[in-house]
This record gives sequence, C-alpha cells and structure tokens, in this order.
Amino acid sequence: MPLLVVGSVAIDNVQTPVERRDNVLGGSATHFSIAASFFTGVRLVGVVGDDWPEQHTRLLNGRGIDTSGLQIVPGGKTFTWTGRYEPNMNDRETLDVQLNVFGEFDPKLPESYRQAKYVFLANGVPAVQSKVLEQVPGRRLVVADTMDLWINIMRDDLDALLKNLDGLVLNDSEAKLLTGTENLVAAGRAVQRMGPKFVVIKKGEHGAMFFGEHETYVMPAYPTDRVVDPTGAGDTFAGGMMGYLTEQDSFDAETLKTAMAYGIVAASFNVEGFGTERMQQISREDIEKRMSEYRKMLSF
Amino acid sequence: MPLLVVGSVAIDNVQTPVERRDNVLGGSATHFSIAASFFTGVRLVGVVGDDWPEQHTRLLNGRGIDTSGLQIVPGGKTFTWTGRYEPNMNDRETLDVQLNVFGEFDPKLPESYRQAKYVFLANGVPAVQSKVLEQVPGRRLVVADTMDLWINIMRDDLDALLKNLDGLVLNDSEAKLLTGTENLVAAGRAVQRMGPKFVVIKKGEHGAMFFGEHETYVMPAYPTDRVVDPTGAGDTFAGGMMGYLTEQDSFDAETLKTAMAYGIVAASFNVEGFGTERMQQISREDIEKRMSEYRKMLSF
Repeated sequence: MPLLVVGSVAIDNVQTPVERRDNVLGGSATHFSIAASFFTGVRLVGVVGDDWPEQHTRLLNGRGIDTSGLQIVPGGKTFTWTGRYEPNMNDRETLDVQLNVFGEFDPKLPESYRQAKYVFLANGVPAVQSKVLEQVPGRRLVVADTMDLWINIMRDDLDALLKNLDGLVLNDSEAKLLTGTENLVAAGRAVQRMGPKFVVIKKGEHGAMFFGEHETYVMPAYPTDRVVDPTGAGDTFAGGMMGYLTEQDSFDAETLKTAMAYGIVAASFNVEGFGTERMQQISREDIEKRMSEYRKMLSF
Repeated sequence: MPLLVVGSVAIDNVQTPVERRDNVLGGSATHFSIAASFFTGVRLVGVVGDDWPEQHTRLLNGRGIDTSGLQIVPGGKTFTWTGRYEPNMNDRETLDVQLNVFGEFDPKLPESYRQAKYVFLANGVPAVQSKVLEQVPGRRLVVADTMDLWINIMRDDLDALLKNLDGLVLNDSEAKLLTGTENLVAAGRAVQRMGPKFVVIKKGEHGAMFFGEHETYVMPAYPTDRVVDPTGAGDTFAGGMMGYLTEQDSFDAETLKTAMAYGIVAASFNVEGFGTERMQQISREDIEKRMSEYRKMLSF
C-alpha cells in the first residue's frame, strides 16, 4: 500500500549555534518520504533542476521511494532555503529563499501514482495542493500541511482546500494565525470547524496536539539533549505518522494515536543530525526501541 | 502524615485579557496548601499583616490546613502582587510588588510543626529557605521552588540550599538562567548536578519535565481551553505533587511519576478560575476523574 506525497525537494544551507552546513538535502517531501520509508513504500511528486545531485535520487530509491514523479527541469535550478537557528533551537530566521523551479511547480502524477489511497500534501501553494487531489480519485485519507505565508496571502484557496481534507497538520503559531485564537486547544477546535476531520498542531520541542471528532490529546516530544538541526522535524513527524497509517491501512482513533507517537519518535531522531543524515543512520528497530521508551515514559 | 509548607501568603490584583480582579487570595504557600489539602493535612508557615481577612484563615482551616504557623504582624500589611497577563496567557508582567511584612519574614516553626517529614519550601529568599530546614530535623523529603530574582542576586545562598534538597521545582526560563543552557534536557541534568536528587522543570501550558537519578521524562499539560487565570498554577502543581507523595508516604520513582501527574491535573483546574476559586469548587473526585482522562490520553 504505497503512500503518495507531493511537496518541495530542496537543497538547504543551515546555520545553527554550533555549525554551518551548506548543500544539505532538504525539502518537505524529502524529509517526509525518508521518515515514511521506514513503514511503507512512498511515491514522491516534486520538482528539481538539473543541478540536482544524482546521488540524492539514488538515496531515495534505495529506501523504496519511487521518484518517477520527480520532475527534473532542464536548465532549471533546485529550490534552496538558507536559514539560521536561534540558540534555543526552536526559533529560526529564513535568510534566503530561492524558489527556482519550485516556483512553477505544476504537479502531474504518473499514471502509476493515481490509485493512491493515502495522500500527504506537504506544505505548498494551496491551489496546487487542491489540483493534486483531483488526480487521485481513489484517495481514502488526505492530510495536508500549510504555512503562515499561505494563511496570509492565499486564504481563499486555503479555505477551499481545508474543506476537502481528512487531516491538517500545522504548527502552533500557524494555528493561532489561522484562527485568531491564542489558546491552542480553542485554536485546534476552530481549525477543525473549517473542514478537516482531524487537526494536528505541532509544538516543536513541546510535542504535538491532536483534535479529532471525539477527542483532544497532547503528546510531548521525546526528550533529547542532542539537538543538532531541527530542519524538517515537522515533515519527519508527518512522515512517521502517515507512514504508520499506510502500513496499518487504517486510520481509526487508536491507530491515529499510535501514529502520532511514531511521528514524534521519528522527529526526535531527525533533529539529532543535519538534514536527513541521522534518519539515514537508523533502522526500524531503533524507532521501535525508542517507541517503547516513549510508551514507558508516558505510563504511570 | 502532615505536609509542611513555608512561603508567601498574599493578596493579588490580576489583570487578564478578559477581566481584572482585585484582592484575590494568592501567594505561593496558599496555592500550594489548597492543592495539597485534597491529599493530606497541611501545616502552613507564612506571614500576613492585620489587613488579612479572617475569612481567608477560615477557608484554609476548613480544608484541613493548620495555620498556627501563620504569623499576623500587628500594624503590618500583607504582601501584594499586581500583574497582567499577555493574550497568550503564558507570559506575564509584574506591575507592582509590595513585599510589606513578607520582606521581613523570619519563619519560626511552632513546636507541633517540627516533626514534619515532608517539606516544601515555596519560592522565597534562599537563606530563609535554608533556615527553615534547620527547624525540621526529622525531614525525609525536602523540595523547594525558586525564581529568577534569587538566581540573579543571591546565587551563593541558592547554591548552598541546592546541596540540601531532595528536589527542586523551577520553571523553564529559570532552569535556562540557572545553568546557561538553552536545551531543557541538558539544563535539567545540569541543575541536578548542583545538588538536588531530582529536578522538575515546569513548562506552563506545555507541562513539566522530570529528571531523576535514573530517568528523564516529560508530561504534557492537561489540555483545557478554559484558561481564566494562570496565577499560582506552578504552586498548585507542586501542591498536588507533594500532597500525593505525603498521602502515599513514599517517593520512589513510580510514586513520583504518579505525583507529577496529580500535580499537572491539579494545575489544570487552578487555571480555570481566578486565584483559588476553581480549586474551592472541586472535589477529590473531580481530580480523580480528570486523572483517569489524563492517563487515558497518554495511553496508546
């Protein structure tokens, strides 16, 4: 049961209080795919320029990630993001964004992708996210991410998208912005009234909150003191969550909760290295081991 | 098995985005005692002026809180705090502090208090906190709170106190200030190396972290959208935690974890009303009910 993801594929330049790293493999769909690949086959839709290192494609393919939906634009340049993290490692400043070929991204799904049942629309232009949906008529579970930029400048398109989602994943400041509500519990419920059947609010180092039809809960982040680079933690969370749901081929309340926990555990590994490097070092067994520590941590 | 608490007893003026309330019963020892009184008898040590409303003493006594250690200074005025909360209800500004009789607080424990085994030193001058310890020779578990002011101006006295504590409870910004460390996991462990056998970092709306000899864990706050006034939430947390430990007459790892959860649940009620008013409306049964919801929330 493969999982479809559409989103950015990028090259990042990351500056943390400890170190600066250039030309790091990044992008929302990349982080998502790698996390999901521990659980299921992934079909990736994205766009890069012909500066895209072939080794990255090999890395993705080696993990069971189908890149036949990754367009390579001849003469184009790959999306790059340059950012700097504050000493608290939770706040960051975007120093430079070069959308390049991603600015004209018009995803066309290969025929083999169109039967996907599980779909994740990683952060992107809401109208483009909606266009993807039309290309997967057999979709059973559609979850999307969004960001402050679209909330501010493309609100109508975003509102239209929200009505067609099963789930929305967004971070705490975005939930407040979208609803004009400071209390996160109230904000989560308000987002839910905009359309999605469930809403996940990501709180960075403080974990994530879930708002479903019948329940509201909070799960803390797995505590780690080895925070090297938080880039992609939110997408890794979503990848772990969606990967597990796809593997289980279920999204009932209980499975969703376990999936949230897998997402949190996956994200806790991601922050321990630059870009995707830590995720490349670990195995499903490492995830399971930390998952049982996490479960034990929350039992009393 | 009564629990001893030493700390401030105050009258607060609280301004929230919703409402302003003057002359609200407050103070660290007050919030602590009321929370602890759901679990155990409490012996309170504090000081007030003769402006102190007799009804507050009756309220405390009616809950099994012994106030024979509450000095009333003739001609003196009770400590008052005036503060305003930001719209996020997590950040606040102190508009005015009148220490009054609390500025000269020199706690003398009544003879009947000196056999206490469970002791909580609510936020106060570290040298005064240390002086209390000398008066409870049979103490088995001593936990203290502190604040940024003492970290900044009375560091030596605080360092001396830390060496004599079983546990320290402090908030996230204070833990960072005390250790010069931005990562909370690293900060918690660094505080532990300063003396206390265990450390609890309170994260407000994000819950609390525990650092013990053999374990580190995080527990989220119980999610509520009815945040009316967060004043005293940290002391209520400590009161719930210490109250449960005293009731159980145990502080092994498992009991400590359950006690953390009781503290979090108690605090979640406290924020639902001004001052102590919500805590006065609820029963142990309400706490147990929310406790099982909280336990269920964290099971997967």
